[in-house]
Amino acid sequence: MLKLFYAAHTCSLATHIALEDAGADYTTSRIEFAKEQQKSADYLKVNPKARVPALVTDRGILTETPAMLAYVAQSFPAAQLAPLDDAFAFAEVQAFNSYLCSSLHVAHAHRMRGYRWVDGNDKAAIAAMQRKVPESVSEGFALVEREMLKGPWVMGERYTICDAYLFTLAQWLEADGVDLARIPKVIDHRRRMSERASVRKAIAEELA
Amino acid sequence: MLKLFYAAHTCSLATHIALEDAGADYTTSRIEFAKEQQKSADYLKVNPKARVPALVTDRGILTETPAMLAYVAQSFPAAQLAPLDDAFAFAEVQAFNSYLCSSLHVAHAHRMRGYRWVDGNDKAAIAAMQRKVPESVSEGFALVEREMLKGPWVMGERYTICDAYLFTLAQWLEADGVDLARIPKVIDHRRRMSERASVRKAIAEELA
Repeated sequence: MLKLFYAAHTCSLATHIALEDAGADYTTSRIEFAKEQQKSADYLKVNPKARVPALVTDRGILTETPAMLAYVAQSFPAAQLAPLDDAFAFAEVQAFNSYLCSSLHVAHAHRMRGYRWVDGNDKAAIAAMQRKVPESVSEGFALVEREMLKGPWVMGERYTICDAYLFTLAQWLEADGVDLARIPKVIDHRRRMSERASVRKAIAEELA
Repeated sequence: MLKLFYAAHTCSLATHIALEDAGADYTTSRIEFAKEQQKSADYLKVNPKARVPALVTDRGILTETPAMLAYVAQSFPAAQLAPLDDAFAFAEVQAFNSYLCSSLHVAHAHRMRGYRWVDGNDKAAIAAMQRKVPESVSEGFALVEREMLKGPWVMGERYTICDAYLFTLAQWLEADGVDLARIPKVIDHRRRMSERASVRKAIAEELA
């Protein structure tokens, strides 16, 4: 049995959706960032990075969204969530997810988690980071819109784990100050994703 | 035939080493950051993100180090650079690479590329980021030392793509102001990596 540790409004939603898409048998455990549960001694045993998501499996614990998404796709091949038998096509999926993880999510994180990269008491530097977020996140999504999102799904005709991940990061567009009118394909993708049963179920549980 | 676009002293070294480890038939093309060649019209056709590395294949172009490393491992299975037939073990490899990509490399990047996350003219904010780098990069490598590097290789007895990636990021430790005495396993790993023929060949070409 798989167990997903998640927190509401975080990137753990991507793996949550993928588990639903896969038809996986899994349970969840909510981590409350407001109570700093991610820093508790019990949770640090699960993930010493003090972050979500984490996925407990029979073999051990996995972290990092791109790795978890690929793991779900490989563990439930019948769900066809990634092109598992085509190394190049699989690498395209992974390249997209890696971009989201290392560039787009990182740009976003400078709004709320600037203390990771400057002294948290340096209010001017924290504010300088926050001012840049609308520009840096907009640039990232513009690149997705222009170069990556093939349509109707990220990788074209086939729905993949990339769609769950893009949808997850697109939850933060308004708060990040992105002009939605400039990324119509991303917004249409977000709307169509929000109508999927797997997405509705994952969100309903996280926001319950 | 594969073609790797790289720049000296960047994370493209990881894929370069992996191609050597794989015994791949490949060529390379050097991008000179000092001449801003990554922003040239020709290179933007290769990688619209204006970054290295990029790998030209018969099927198309791949970017993002974790995706490229897994692609090399899957394309040259005889080299046994990743546990390809074990979804959990493969996910552990991917989780390590994703951490390096999205956390450790990102922490490092705040020393030289702070303009990505604040206005480049805000000298105080740029300096604030640079001051934090020794701490944030040290924390990342301490986590690798304590929780991830199983020894003798990252994943234990078997050498994998993770080793090429860790070695690559460990090139920057001194410049990032990390106290090497606190990460003896990482330093021993770096030394042993530097003696491998694949590593020597890749570095010799990049620094030629």
